[in-house]
Amino acid sequence: MVAELLKSDFTITGIYALKTWISGQRGISVSNEKLVEIIAPAELARISNLKTPNEVLATVKIPERDFDESIYDDLVLMLSQISDPGNLGTIVRIADWFGIKNIICSPDSVEVYNPKVVQASMGSLFRVKVNYAELKEVLTNLKNNLPVFGAYLEGKNIYRETLPDKGIIIIGNESRGIVENLETFITKKLFIPSFSSGAESLNASVATAIICSEFRRKTN
Amino acid sequence: MVAELLKSDFTITGIYALKTWISGQRGISVSNEKLVEIIAPAELARISNLKTPNEVLATVKIPERDFDESIYDDLVLMLSQISDPGNLGTIVRIADWFGIKNIICSPDSVEVYNPKVVQASMGSLFRVKVNYAELKEVLTNLKNNLPVFGAYLEGKNIYRETLPDKGIIIIGNESRGIVENLETFITKKLFIPSFSSGAESLNASVATAIICSEFRRKTN
Repeated sequence: MVAELLKSDFTITGIYALKTWISGQRGISVSNEKLVEIIAPAELARISNLKTPNEVLATVKIPERDFDESIYDDLVLMLSQISDPGNLGTIVRIADWFGIKNIICSPDSVEVYNPKVVQASMGSLFRVKVNYAELKEVLTNLKNNLPVFGAYLEGKNIYRETLPDKGIIIIGNESRGIVENLETFITKKLFIPSFSSGAESLNASVATAIICSEFRRKTN
Repeated sequence: MVAELLKSDFTITGIYALKTWISGQRGISVSNEKLVEIIAPAELARISNLKTPNEVLATVKIPERDFDESIYDDLVLMLSQISDPGNLGTIVRIADWFGIKNIICSPDSVEVYNPKVVQASMGSLFRVKVNYAELKEVLTNLKNNLPVFGAYLEGKNIYRETLPDKGIIIIGNESRGIVENLETFITKKLFIPSFSSGAESLNASVATAIICSEFRRKTN
């Protein structure tokens, strides 16, 4: 993850590394080199949140994110009240895989710089821009008649729909789904068909993966 | 989950419930009714693994699973060294959603009755049969020229393949992928295309979800 960080536009404020990590790094930039402090394994274990820390830990400045209309030239994910840090991190990683560069979270979603989110994102957090905003407000001010998608039990079979390469995909909370006051903005309700006799739902990040895959598969 | 359990073929040995849970249950069978013990919230909190236990906890007999050739009349998932309990539980839930009734895990995979697996499966564990066996041995004794699929970086674009409704899908370990000694059994390597500039992999359960979705989508 630190290797991914070094390639990103994040401002690094410190790199605390074992000697073994340093020797594996080639081409680390001069400005970053000044930030490196060599520490002992016991020291790394003390400053890390992980039970078995790797070889390096870095501190970064949390970027001030903002977004303008240009993000809507591509698919945008909107997360409504995602509360599980593992889910948010996994969703960031999924967005990255499918080339979705912008995520807008409702203010009551879990914090994206929560250590568990950062860890689960596996470096994707350094490539995907995550903003927080009132989703209702953002959707009210949308221009260009952008399509807005959401997963609902009464939605259309996603496998049979022709899906566009621009638009907004809303993902709802793990147990409550999409909040009611956003439903009016949805232009097409989608449904992932089940082949089960009993399963009632999919995990939020799993549903996100299947939806993103369906949006992107046609261009392959 | 206890509601799902009551509908399953698992043998229940005890049900420890708050009064509030009992009053919500209609049609609980007589044989199960005898197993119910009403307890206080503080007692439930003491016997539960959860920080915020719900209204009921049940104990069940771990079933003795076995499988015969008939499981190969449908898709079968094979898990090679899946080590994260959350991943295994999520994979069981995904299999259930996509109507895959049998999973075979390598003996060095995480135990499916680990409380975290049970929890993450959200009741799907009561519908999907999970066995443990030496995968190499099982694959060696396969009859009927069943196709065997696995995800590899050099595999074929899964979006462009015609996928059958019978066969084995092998899912590899979270960081190491499919163990080398199984590669020889793979009849078709598949690849989930990435649209990212940097992401190198997907979470094992996310990859499973996309693969299962691709296998099933055509029948919808």
